[in-house]
Amino acid sequence: MRDIAVFSGSAHPELAAEVCAHLDVPLLPVQVDRFANDCLGVQLQANCRGRDVFLIQPLVRPVQEHLVELLLMLDAARGASASRITVVLPHYSYARSDKKDAPRISIGGRLVADLLATAGANRVLAMTLHSPQVHGFFSVPVDHLHALRELAAHFRHYDLSNAVAVSPDLGNAKEAAHFARLLGIPVAAGAKQRFADDRVRISAVIGEVAGKDVIVLDDEIAKGSTVVELLRLLREQGAASVRVACTHGLFAAGALKRIGDAPEVLEIVCTNTVPVPDEERTEKLRILSIGPALAEAIRRIHNGESVSALFDAPQP
Amino acid sequence: MRDIAVFSGSAHPELAAEVCAHLDVPLLPVQVDRFANDCLGVQLQANCRGRDVFLIQPLVRPVQEHLVELLLMLDAARGASASRITVVLPHYSYARSDKKDAPRISIGGRLVADLLATAGANRVLAMTLHSPQVHGFFSVPVDHLHALRELAAHFRHYDLSNAVAVSPDLGNAKEAAHFARLLGIPVAAGAKQRFADDRVRISAVIGEVAGKDVIVLDDEIAKGSTVVELLRLLREQGAASVRVACTHGLFAAGALKRIGDAPEVLEIVCTNTVPVPDEERTEKLRILSIGPALAEAIRRIHNGESVSALFDAPQP
Amino acid sequence: MRDIAVFSGSAHPELAAEVCAHLDVPLLPVQVDRFANDCLGVQLQANCRGRDVFLIQPLVRPVQEHLVELLLMLDAARGASASRITVVLPHYSYARSDKKDAPRISIGGRLVADLLATAGANRVLAMTLHSPQVHGFFSVPVDHLHALRELAAHFRHYDLSNAVAVSPDLGNAKEAAHFARLLGIPVAAGAKQRFADDRVRISAVIGEVAGKDVIVLDDEIAKGSTVVELLRLLREQGAASVRVACTHGLFAAGALKRIGDAPEVLEIVCTNTVPVPDEERTEKLRILSIGPALAEAIRRIHNGESVSALFDAPQP
Amino acid sequence: MRDIAVFSGSAHPELAAEVCAHLDVPLLPVQVDRFANDCLGVQLQANCRGRDVFLIQPLVRPVQEHLVELLLMLDAARGASASRITVVLPHYSYARSDKKDAPRISIGGRLVADLLATAGANRVLAMTLHSPQVHGFFSVPVDHLHALRELAAHFRHYDLSNAVAVSPDLGNAKEAAHFARLLGIPVAAGAKQRFADDRVRISAVIGEVAGKDVIVLDDEIAKGSTVVELLRLLREQGAASVRVACTHGLFAAGALKRIGDAPEVLEIVCTNTVPVPDEERTEKLRILSIGPALAEAIRRIHNGESVSALFDAPQP
Amino acid sequence: MRDIAVFSGSAHPELAAEVCAHLDVPLLPVQVDRFANDCLGVQLQANCRGRDVFLIQPLVRPVQEHLVELLLMLDAARGASASRITVVLPHYSYARSDKKDAPRISIGGRLVADLLATAGANRVLAMTLHSPQVHGFFSVPVDHLHALRELAAHFRHYDLSNAVAVSPDLGNAKEAAHFARLLGIPVAAGAKQRFADDRVRISAVIGEVAGKDVIVLDDEIAKGSTVVELLRLLREQGAASVRVACTHGLFAAGALKRIGDAPEVLEIVCTNTVPVPDEERTEKLRILSIGPALAEAIRRIHNGESVSALFDAPQP
Amino acid sequence: MRDIAVFSGSAHPELAAEVCAHLDVPLLPVQVDRFANDCLGVQLQANCRGRDVFLIQPLVRPVQEHLVELLLMLDAARGASASRITVVLPHYSYARSDKKDAPRISIGGRLVADLLATAGANRVLAMTLHSPQVHGFFSVPVDHLHALRELAAHFRHYDLSNAVAVSPDLGNAKEAAHFARLLGIPVAAGAKQRFADDRVRISAVIGEVAGKDVIVLDDEIAKGSTVVELLRLLREQGAASVRVACTHGLFAAGALKRIGDAPEVLEIVCTNTVPVPDEERTEKLRILSIGPALAEAIRRIHNGESVSALFDAPQP
Repeated sequence: MRDIAVFSGSAHPELAAEVCAHLDVPLLPVQVDRFANDCLGVQLQANCRGRDVFLIQPLVRPVQEHLVELLLMLDAARGASASRITVVLPHYSYARSDKKDAPRISIGGRLVADLLATAGANRVLAMTLHSPQVHGFFSVPVDHLHALRELAAHFRHYDLSNAVAVSPDLGNAKEAAHFARLLGIPVAAGAKQRFADDRVRISAVIGEVAGKDVIVLDDEIAKGSTVVELLRLLREQGAASVRVACTHGLFAAGALKRIGDAPEVLEIVCTNTVPVPDEERTEKLRILSIGPALAEAIRRIHNGESVSALFDAPQP
Repeated sequence: MRDIAVFSGSAHPELAAEVCAHLDVPLLPVQVDRFANDCLGVQLQANCRGRDVFLIQPLVRPVQEHLVELLLMLDAARGASASRITVVLPHYSYARSDKKDAPRISIGGRLVADLLATAGANRVLAMTLHSPQVHGFFSVPVDHLHALRELAAHFRHYDLSNAVAVSPDLGNAKEAAHFARLLGIPVAAGAKQRFADDRVRISAVIGEVAGKDVIVLDDEIAKGSTVVELLRLLREQGAASVRVACTHGLFAAGALKRIGDAPEVLEIVCTNTVPVPDEERTEKLRILSIGPALAEAIRRIHNGESVSALFDAPQP
Repeated sequence: MRDIAVFSGSAHPELAAEVCAHLDVPLLPVQVDRFANDCLGVQLQANCRGRDVFLIQPLVRPVQEHLVELLLMLDAARGASASRITVVLPHYSYARSDKKDAPRISIGGRLVADLLATAGANRVLAMTLHSPQVHGFFSVPVDHLHALRELAAHFRHYDLSNAVAVSPDLGNAKEAAHFARLLGIPVAAGAKQRFADDRVRISAVIGEVAGKDVIVLDDEIAKGSTVVELLRLLREQGAASVRVACTHGLFAAGALKRIGDAPEVLEIVCTNTVPVPDEERTEKLRILSIGPALAEAIRRIHNGESVSALFDAPQP
Repeated sequence: MRDIAVFSGSAHPELAAEVCAHLDVPLLPVQVDRFANDCLGVQLQANCRGRDVFLIQPLVRPVQEHLVELLLMLDAARGASASRITVVLPHYSYARSDKKDAPRISIGGRLVADLLATAGANRVLAMTLHSPQVHGFFSVPVDHLHALRELAAHFRHYDLSNAVAVSPDLGNAKEAAHFARLLGIPVAAGAKQRFADDRVRISAVIGEVAGKDVIVLDDEIAKGSTVVELLRLLREQGAASVRVACTHGLFAAGALKRIGDAPEVLEIVCTNTVPVPDEERTEKLRILSIGPALAEAIRRIHNGESVSALFDAPQP
Repeated sequence: MRDIAVFSGSAHPELAAEVCAHLDVPLLPVQVDRFANDCLGVQLQANCRGRDVFLIQPLVRPVQEHLVELLLMLDAARGASASRITVVLPHYSYARSDKKDAPRISIGGRLVADLLATAGANRVLAMTLHSPQVHGFFSVPVDHLHALRELAAHFRHYDLSNAVAVSPDLGNAKEAAHFARLLGIPVAAGAKQRFADDRVRISAVIGEVAGKDVIVLDDEIAKGSTVVELLRLLREQGAASVRVACTHGLFAAGALKRIGDAPEVLEIVCTNTVPVPDEERTEKLRILSIGPALAEAIRRIHNGESVSALFDAPQP
Repeated sequence: MRDIAVFSGSAHPELAAEVCAHLDVPLLPVQVDRFANDCLGVQLQANCRGRDVFLIQPLVRPVQEHLVELLLMLDAARGASASRITVVLPHYSYARSDKKDAPRISIGGRLVADLLATAGANRVLAMTLHSPQVHGFFSVPVDHLHALRELAAHFRHYDLSNAVAVSPDLGNAKEAAHFARLLGIPVAAGAKQRFADDRVRISAVIGEVAGKDVIVLDDEIAKGSTVVELLRLLREQGAASVRVACTHGLFAAGALKRIGDAPEVLEIVCTNTVPVPDEERTEKLRILSIGPALAEAIRRIHNGESVSALFDAPQP
């Protein structure tokens, strides 16, 4: 294995630049052209031959453009004789298409995993996949990071003597429990159900929240409906204050505003796996960087050191 | 596509025979040999050439023997020029290995799916996979059935005026809700957590159970720890009676007895996806047959009729 | 092989509807959803099991959206147990990315061919590929149609006693010669060069055009630069009138106006492989339908009749 | 290529430990779990990332358990980003299923070779495959060792002035001839036939055995029927003494006793490719170690030195 | 599956014509071109779309030309949308390269099997493969015929009261035994060895041949060295007469003459799997046709009837 | 990656020896055997394990022999555990079969690319492929060199003050223009057409050639018909002198003589990608060596340096 070579697609160059700064390697330039017929063309503008190539591209809006661009970058790196190609997916949006809950649909999370391998991906570095089973959709090795460490570091600066971590969903409360252990606080969870209709309803919160400083933890927030529903219950049950945290801050139109409008919400914290447009940002938003974590994982992958030692799935 | 040809491995010939009876086709003989070196040899003892072959084999105890036997059957059918080979997996036990929750482990559910395809499976007919994402582990088409119809039909014979369906786990309550809708009864769910240790703890039951005739519904029961824990809470909350239902009755040593020892448990109902040894059976056990459902699915697959029309994932 | 099932993506439903009308089969509905995170979801809304499925989708603007949509449709059809899946690509825009004329780029035409196969395409029906070598990029069988028959039929209605067919490019004059033979007229060709810079220059027209009624024939027109350059020479050489014909009318912004502004241009003729937005259309535009040709090819593919017999590559 | 990493499945940890001792590397721990549903889970308990991984597992009784365990280990090592994975198969029992001598059976030796590749094997190190053609069943590179060197070294300690090597089977006498050359003694061979029934019959011994000290050499001994039949002929023809040697001492129930009961049999010699249970061992048994040979081959594979130079197929 | 379509490469058109006559289908024309640069081009000159295509081509001298021609025919048939493609290999010469008996050589029998699959072969119909393990080299289904039935029918016309079948090689005597059973005569076998050098030596004949009418049976005769060596022993042991039979009569230069020069040899019988040039033929040569057998196998494959029922491996 | 290992097939050992001399590495021996049945066997006679293997073999006459030999060498190198295998194809003759211009033919250029990958090629080093699209036929990375640098260096020794480069074909004039730029001379091109019949006709030469010293440049010359036709026009238009240059000098029977017979032809220049038999050579022939260019490319591939930096496709 020879030198490392890091390229970024056009989805999130700021994050890529930050990762490279931490790695102390240059972010290598990529030229993306759009032809008259709307097809994309990609040129990696630095030698890849025999190098350990990393392509950083979260699959964020516009997802299809970024996906095809990534596939072209993969094929270009393979054709240019890269020694190994790792796709760095800070956000793998198609992971939400992880089951066949209606006839004659695609399980997009599996399909896109196969497309990436076809285009030349030798391995994947992903962050907080929507469900842990999505790992099994890939036929290439996956390193699966979590941002709990970064999120916990942020909240340690507060007085946590009265705090509780709350997962909006009992089914996925494992991660919240791990997060709570890192902070030394108790954990609670909403009982999210989809019983009678397809809108979310949280019928109860299991665990003590009355008078508490609540830290809501979810993997991603898009429209924010689940969080808004949870806020309703927390309010009913007399939570003292609320801070909202997630890894992937997708914040579909207005979500930040809708959540932040609740006066008891003091802060909305996410990481920079997904770029948040300036016009969507509000005063309550705080964006933490997972750049150092990605950089350290890349360094370890490149050097053949254990990644699991640092970042693997939360253990009880 | 020419004639249908149905073979059974040695895992559950009774179920296969029943399926064939419903299809009104013969269950074709398979000879399984064990050589002096403990290797298995399999001979399909009827012409497969150009036929639509179905191999019925739940991956039940001894799992490794039945898995390798199935792989040999697949390879034999392919080598014998079967037109199409469908693996019928009434129970896919490796589906529980569906995530990488520790470093350097295999996601067995994905691996075995790949092995089946390598050995020659063209498609899979499965029943109540442990998590819906497992569907995405297969590179071949999967028809995924549920046994809710059969279970509901059984319970309709009782007076349900005071009944409630209870899922031990809120995260997977969707299926229980579908089951409840089929019966016209309300639904509740346990809040199952694994917060502080790896033993199951159910901290609450969401929904009304006091004084109710409870029907517990789970996908499978192996050791029965979750059900026993749920029984404790139901007792605390004053449930009037309890019936326990599941699709896959694995009933690892003593589970049936442990659950049945609770006097409030009136009945334990499972389907015949997994053979239950006579010595494990207790008086409270009732085994429903999914033979007709499998037969109908096979008939539709063979005839090119929609399977989803009848059996697909529960819709709210 | 059982019934035929034709679906259309969202790229060109009018063409698909026309094809189905000619085949006298229904155009089956497809539901395309865009999720909150901008991912696409596709549901084929008719039974595919054991059917001979055709998915009609030219890769036109927005190309990436239509490509990913097509990949999802393919995967859905495969997962739904289609007997065979044919992708109908009236326009394969990525065919222009057919060589590696710079280091570290992707040969997009090959990559997309591989992606289609990965997603489940069993065969492809294409029309007038940019270069004939692109056929070899596909690992699945391709039926490659031409629209010369349709174009020639249109021009037969004119007085051709003084007409000549002109290819803008000598290198690709074979098709123009075939077209001319169909019309019984002579052929000429521009000598298109890219000698000293990367702008097109046509340095001469080989063959007689002075005082002639010229029919310019090209495979596709996007920006129209080549045609505009050819018009300059034809004017210099004293052509009497000009009609412009092509298979794929991409007409990137303003191309139709730029070409039509030349007073000697009497008509611009294309086929409907690519939808032309109403706001781009001009009075001089005539759009011919290749719907009947696609329908006949589909019918023959479905029935196992020779396609080459009717449509194959032009022969001298 | 970075460091070497050697793991053992549960089939023969003693041999693996010995190999590691010779290589002066630690035998890395593997945790094998059996879940309540009888599925296996495997965790490699040392970093594999970028390492040259060797998994040692003869496919011995219980074969199916050891095979599936090996497949899980392969998948785990691949998922853990091993740089290269070599399966070390001191005994490949499925090699005996190497032909299709009845309709509709599997050629297990080919199938299992494909399964190993599917699970992640990049190469195989095998010992004395049942037939040399089995090498061609693997799609990955195979290094094929023989134990003749070890067996010959053992017999050199005896007075060989009156000795002759005897192969029970003329068809496979090549190996016996090579063995004889190593010892500088003549060779003879039994004429093994399966003419009139499927029980073994040796109708003659070609070569001089009367009054000789016979060393019988076979590749493996399972039930021992062939050897017992050969002993009968040797007795008839007046052999002075008999020593029996083989590479793979499978010794199915009672074989050692049955052979050893013949008073003229002075010794039964095998190697430790297969573990012999203590309760089967008899006083006449001598087990030689192929640990040093495997270790040297692994060292050479790891270092990129020629393996054939030392171990390749016997040359005349 | 629609109509059958049979094509022949240029290796053995007479055999193909005979097969087609028996099937009562036309032998469809193939045009083979050799370009100025010595590359081959192949055109199948009849519609293949949706048809069940059979390509008949024994890999006989010049082997490389015939192999590449076959690969081109396969690719052409696949590209022309054949429904299924069966390669009919009356003689698979590369089957002799079935093991790696020297370092850094190819196992050609496996390689060519993979090449055939890459080029589009869906299945193979072979005749008397050199070793039965070669069957396992193919990843596609193989139907493996034998010519014993045809050979036996021929010899039944003689007085067999004093006859014995002799295999030159004890290791492969199984086939001779089967042949003998068909004729109701005893069997014997030469003890072929390669002990001290690489020239063949037959040290003994097991079984009674003195005064007998011997029928020598081998799978193929190329240089004839083995047969000539066997003749020496038969002469020594006083055989009354000798007839020589084989499936594949390769008869490398002079072999027919060398064998036929022995006065005790009354007849040399082979089948027409390999074309024998007129100039090589001698008066003692008799060529039997396996055309009817191949035709019947093709008919059964096409119709989905059991092939093993008629032709499978000899059973004791 | 460890040491480099270069082998040559029997197609062009002189070129391979020259490449090795430039690399200062030994040309490693290969033994090619032809068996009695006309099959080939290949043994690489030096250790390949973990080495960076290069196999040099232009696909020249007899093409099929050289192709199969190359496939066997690839398989042997893979089986011998080469770390990476690069096929060096100084001439890829099957590249001319790059489109499907008739029904039911093979696109040989794609098929052979797939066969090479199946046999074990990890990458390809090619020279002046017939059309640039052929690059996209390979699924493995290709480095595509041109010989323009070598050809230009040769012509720089002449007085070029009155010279012009002429491409016989306008469609492919790009390369001639690049060549002209290297020499600082103007460029012209023939207008090659196949309008009315399938014989080549050049109807005009675009650019000034009267009184000029013409250097004709083509990619390959086989029969020489195109060049002879061009000479006719150049003569008509009064060219002062002609020199003919190409990369691949195939020179099918008599071509050199036919071209050289024209008195105005002063010289015919080609490179040594293809061996020219002594008996075909004429006094006017000059063969330049691309050995240094291949050696430098191999050195860079081995060392992971950019190949495009030196050799990539001509840029305007």
